[in-house]
Parts: sequence; C-alpha cells; structure tokens
Amino acid sequence: MSQESWLPTLKTDTPEEGYNLAIKLARKAVGLTQPDENVRKKLRPVYANNADSLILASQVVAINFQTVAAANNYWRD
Amino acid sequence: MSQESWLPTLKTDTPEEGYNLAIKLARKAVGLTQPDENVRKKLRPVYANNADSLILASQVVAINFQTVAAANNYWRD
Amino acid sequence: MSQESWLPTLKTDTPEEGYNLAIKLARKAVGLTQPDENVRKKLRPVYANNADSLILASQVVAINFQTVAAANNYWRD
Amino acid sequence: MSQESWLPTLKTDTPEEGYNLAIKLARKAVGLTQPDENVRKKLRPVYANNADSLILASQVVAINFQTVAAANNYWRD
Amino acid sequence: MSQESWLPTLKTDTPEEGYNLAIKLARKAVGLTQPDENVRKKLRPVYANNADSLILASQVVAINFQTVAAANNYWRD
Amino acid sequence: MSQESWLPTLKTDTPEEGYNLAIKLARKAVGLTQPDENVRKKLRPVYANNADSLILASQVVAINFQTVAAANNYWRD
Repeated sequence: MSQESWLPTLKTDTPEEGYNLAIKLARKAVGLTQPDENVRKKLRPVYANNADSLILASQVVAINFQTVAAANNYWRD
Repeated sequence: MSQESWLPTLKTDTPEEGYNLAIKLARKAVGLTQPDENVRKKLRPVYANNADSLILASQVVAINFQTVAAANNYWRD
Repeated sequence: MSQESWLPTLKTDTPEEGYNLAIKLARKAVGLTQPDENVRKKLRPVYANNADSLILASQVVAINFQTVAAANNYWRD
Repeated sequence: MSQESWLPTLKTDTPEEGYNLAIKLARKAVGLTQPDENVRKKLRPVYANNADSLILASQVVAINFQTVAAANNYWRD
Repeated sequence: MSQESWLPTLKTDTPEEGYNLAIKLARKAVGLTQPDENVRKKLRPVYANNADSLILASQVVAINFQTVAAANNYWRD
Repeated sequence: MSQESWLPTLKTDTPEEGYNLAIKLARKAVGLTQPDENVRKKLRPVYANNADSLILASQVVAINFQTVAAANNYWRD
C-alpha cells in the first residue's frame, strides 16, 4: 500500500472519523471530475447557498457513509 | 472516543431514536458544507416550502436510516 | 420504549404492512422538516400533480421499504 | 394474511416475475400519493415522453428490484 | 422458467456480462413505461446529449449492477 | 474470461484502486449510452462546471464504490 494513498483503508477508530471519511470520498469524486481547484472554488458558493444542492451533497455523504460504516462493522466490535 | 463527539456511536435504544439519529446525520453534512448558520437559516424556508426539496430531504434521511438500522441489527435483539 | 412512540418497531406481520410503514417513514421526515400542517396541505396538490415529484416520492418509499423488508428478514420466516 | 392483499409476499418463482413485482411496488407508491386515477392517466404521457422522467422511473424500479431480488436470495436456490 | 423470458437468471459468467445485464435491466423499465419504440428513439438523442441525463442513466445502471453483482457473489467463487 | 474485457474482476489490491474502478464503472455507462467520444468531450465542460452535475457524478461513483468495496470485503482481509 503506497504511503501517499489518499485512501489507504476504510477503517476508522470512531463513527465520527468514519463520517469524515465519507465526506472525503464524496469530495474526491468531485475533485477527479473537475481537477481545477479554481473552478471548484468558484462553484462552492453556488451550491453552498442552494438548498437543493446542499441536500444532494448530503445524500452523497450518506451513501458513502453506508460503505464506511459497513466496512467498520458499524463500530460494534 | 472523545466526549465531545457529535457521533459517539450508531447504537440507539429504539427505532425512533435511530430515526432521529438519521436526521442528525443528514443535517450534519449540510452543516459541514455550509457552516454559516445564518445562510442555513435563510435557506430553511426555501426548501421547507418546496415539495421536491422536502421529498429529497426525506430521501437523505431514508438512506441514513438504512445505515443506523443495520448498525442496530434492526432493533431485533 | 415509550408507548407514544410513532415507531416502536420495524417488525410487521405482512409485506403490505411493511410497505405502509415505509410510507410512514417517508412522510415522517417531511413532517419533521416542515412541521406546519397547513403548509404541507398546500404543497400536497403541487407534488401530487407533478409526475417527477410522484416518481421521487416513490423512490423514497422504495428506500425505506428496503430497510423495513430487511428488518423483517423479507417475511421469509 | 388477507387474501385481498396487493402484496402477500415478496417471493416470486423467477427473476422476471420479481422484476414485475418491483414495477408494481414502484407504481403502488405513486397510486397511494395520487389516488385519483384520472390525474395519473393525465400525467402518464407527461413522464412517458420525457427522457429524464423515464430514467427516474427506471431508478425506482431498480431500487425495488434490489429488495425483491434479496428477498428471493437472487433466485439462486 | 419460460424459454422466452428476457430475464431467466441473474447469474452471469463474468463481471462484464453482469454489467451488461445491469444495463438491460435499466432499459427494460424504460421500455415498459414507454412501450412505443418510436418515442424512445426520439428521446434517445435528448438524453444522450444531455450531461445530467447521462449521469442519471449511469446511476440506474450502478444500482442494478449492485443487484447483479450480489447475485453473483461478486464473481468471487 | 476474455483478455480484452474492460472489467475482468471487481477485485482490487487497495481501497484507492477500488475507488478508481468505481469511477471507471460510472464512466462506462455514460460511454455506452453516448458512444460518440466527440459528444462526450463537448459535454464534459458542461457538467464539470456545474455544481449539481458534479454532485450527481459523485453520487454515481459512491454507488459503484459500494459494490466494489463489498466485492473486496472492504479490504479487511
């Protein structure tokens, strides 16, 4: 496993860290589709001030959190 | 586990509490994307009075509830 | 478990009751986001007469039904 | 189990019948949200001639098919 | 199982064939909602030239691929 | 299994490679729906500069990543 990997593992110590990883996963896909940071910065106020965009963004986090939570066996252990 | 964590566990005593946690998870992503509470307050009447926004919001809760319900083994135990 | 809970359990006797519970779950999130019943009543004809809104609403029910069906082990027992 | 139930079971003999059940589940939620058959008939050409509506409808079927397929253990037995 | 079934099984020999089946499942729902092939042909350039429609279509395939992949135990065997 | 298959397996060595495969799966469906590379190139700046399109694209990746992560048992082994 490369040390520079942005995603070395899906394991996290706590649910909160798992949630943060879900956000990271959601943003990564955006960054890979639009690699230009300046464009992303310009788009940020667009969706951060639009109710439906915020809900859609929350949905992507929710889907990724399903994956991370399952990977951590829901932090039950 | 930090005492101040907003998400110390996915375990809840009842399905209803699990549903409330699903709502909390949905709102958290919105809060992290738009941290300015004043903006969020301004947006609230926008989506709370729009049928499609309400349905979309319900969808995010549903996805998070899947995660919470699975984490609690559907409160079968 | 409080007797007044709107969601005491995810268990239902039949798939049809499970489907009705999925609808209840979908509506609950709408009600919690827009607690004013008068507003919800005003919005009802908006989405009930819009094809895409109806499809979106059906999607939320479908996601919740996944949860309820899994909780009931698909009523296989 | 009532004989008149529209959903007595999630079990089907074949994947194709399971797919048809998924469609039935998708339509049921629409019918429960908009019980007036005349309105639904009026809306049908609207979404049946709109590409995005058709894709959205296919998505709801896909979600329900996940449930039905799991309930039938993917017809592997 | 009828020989003429368009969906005799969810089993496929390879992941690629499973992906193709996921596409078939996505299209089938469209075809059942809009049975008129001429209308579908007219709609094709509409969504095939619209970025959001293409992304939505890819989402439906992704959901169906989840089902097919699970049915095949992810082709691990 | 054909050597030329674009999807010989869902197995990857690391979560990061699994994420890349999820992106590949998302793009493949777009490519199969719109096979003309020139059209896809023309559409790229449309969605890459639209906040909601980027979020939708991230959602498709998230759904595919669920599949790939499950196929790899979340890289726990």
